[in-house]
Amino acid sequence: MSAELSETERQALLSAAHAAADAARKITLSYFRTDQLKADNKAADGFDPVTQADREAEVAIRDVLDELRPQDGILGEEFGQKPGSSGLTWVLDPIDGTRGFISGTPTWGTLISVRDENGPILGLIDQPYIGERFIGGPDIAQLQTAAGSQPLGVSPSASLAAATLFTTFPEVGTKHEGNAFRELSTQVRLTRYGMDCYAYALLAAGQIDLVVEAGLHAYDIQAPIAVISAAGGIVSDWQGGPVHEGGRVIAAASVELHSAALEILARAPMG
Amino acid sequence: MSAELSETERQALLSAAHAAADAARKITLSYFRTDQLKADNKAADGFDPVTQADREAEVAIRDVLDELRPQDGILGEEFGQKPGSSGLTWVLDPIDGTRGFISGTPTWGTLISVRDENGPILGLIDQPYIGERFIGGPDIAQLQTAAGSQPLGVSPSASLAAATLFTTFPEVGTKHEGNAFRELSTQVRLTRYGMDCYAYALLAAGQIDLVVEAGLHAYDIQAPIAVISAAGGIVSDWQGGPVHEGGRVIAAASVELHSAALEILARAPMG
Repeated sequence: MSAELSETERQALLSAAHAAADAARKITLSYFRTDQLKADNKAADGFDPVTQADREAEVAIRDVLDELRPQDGILGEEFGQKPGSSGLTWVLDPIDGTRGFISGTPTWGTLISVRDENGPILGLIDQPYIGERFIGGPDIAQLQTAAGSQPLGVSPSASLAAATLFTTFPEVGTKHEGNAFRELSTQVRLTRYGMDCYAYALLAAGQIDLVVEAGLHAYDIQAPIAVISAAGGIVSDWQGGPVHEGGRVIAAASVELHSAALEILARAPMG
Repeated sequence: MSAELSETERQALLSAAHAAADAARKITLSYFRTDQLKADNKAADGFDPVTQADREAEVAIRDVLDELRPQDGILGEEFGQKPGSSGLTWVLDPIDGTRGFISGTPTWGTLISVRDENGPILGLIDQPYIGERFIGGPDIAQLQTAAGSQPLGVSPSASLAAATLFTTFPEVGTKHEGNAFRELSTQVRLTRYGMDCYAYALLAAGQIDLVVEAGLHAYDIQAPIAVISAAGGIVSDWQGGPVHEGGRVIAAASVELHSAALEILARAPMG
């Protein structure tokens, strides 16, 4: 989907993504685990600091993109759609995993990606507190930390029976979706919960084999798609079709695992 | 329970705990997220690297304690009981959360504590990958990172309806235990899963309000008890009694929350 991207353009997109993530980091870390966040969260009907951190981080990202990529469109969780003229659109979730964020767990992330008419080209999952940035795009699949960078790559193919499966919420989604997930869960070696977007990062880093979720939005999944695809994995909906517009997601480390899991999930009735 | 501890003795225990945790860090980080660990985990019936990392880390801790605290006893997950003559016993779990460890999540921890006849005196929860060490004991309640240290303290009292509740496995324990947990879960604002011992650290750091688990061993809970107690929280079994020998655990940020949650959990039949 990015066959026409020149090296110069690729570098420009990558720089813009990094600059945007750096700007968001300053905001998110200024709220994470602070007394301000804790105190305000206790208020029954007061100011909502989570929305505040979300909104400020998205403004910071948009400011960077407006300057570096004025011709591109933007779709963000907090401020919706800004049209562009380049055919490219940035898709943003300033804080994916706000429930993790307000609980102090280092499993939320800033999701930044850029798409063309076919889907995501390049994306990143940034975990500011740990200081990890997982990046995927044409000719790049990398984990960057303060200590340097290392290649990302999915795990060598495991059988379904040896696989590790992640999702965030045990109920997964609707009743049908939950049932399908639990059926899949009985077939794998290990099922774990609660990691928000960090689960997709772990899949790209070769640590786990499957992530299955439902009810996602475009801005929840486009960056993970870019990162996992670049690392050699596969992301689709539960019928095997494209999922960059959101919905029911399966991410797998290999074609074999993807097929084996799909066989179970595809049976879930809609709704 | 530590009224008779002199300042010199307190410092000696703290130094020994740090030295032991430092020694364990080297081992655990040499396995965490490595190709060795990943490859071996895929083997159907091969060498078990998790046990290997666990055992090597416990050996490293025991070596430090044998040198610095030869008169104290040791109880560890991997190598059982070593009797002592001082009246003090070190209680260790070299890798609490091995399922998280083999999945690459930074939610496992090294648990090191020291107890007298009444229970834990001092303990720490170490998360080597993030570089966080949560310490609690007489006159100390601290989070130490590479950037320095900051005081630990539980969150100001939230009502049950405003509380954040954590556990690791959605099934929690037996059927009765799971039912009691789910009843409690319907009364709180937010329930989250999958954090292993890191949930206890988050409670001590004032980020969350309740942790409820079942089926724990002494070495899973003694260090969390020391850290949470020092930070102003309360840890007991589901009847309100001492839980440092393991079992069903409730950890709460305040007396009020503890009572409100106990009222629900205490109804769970045994078994």
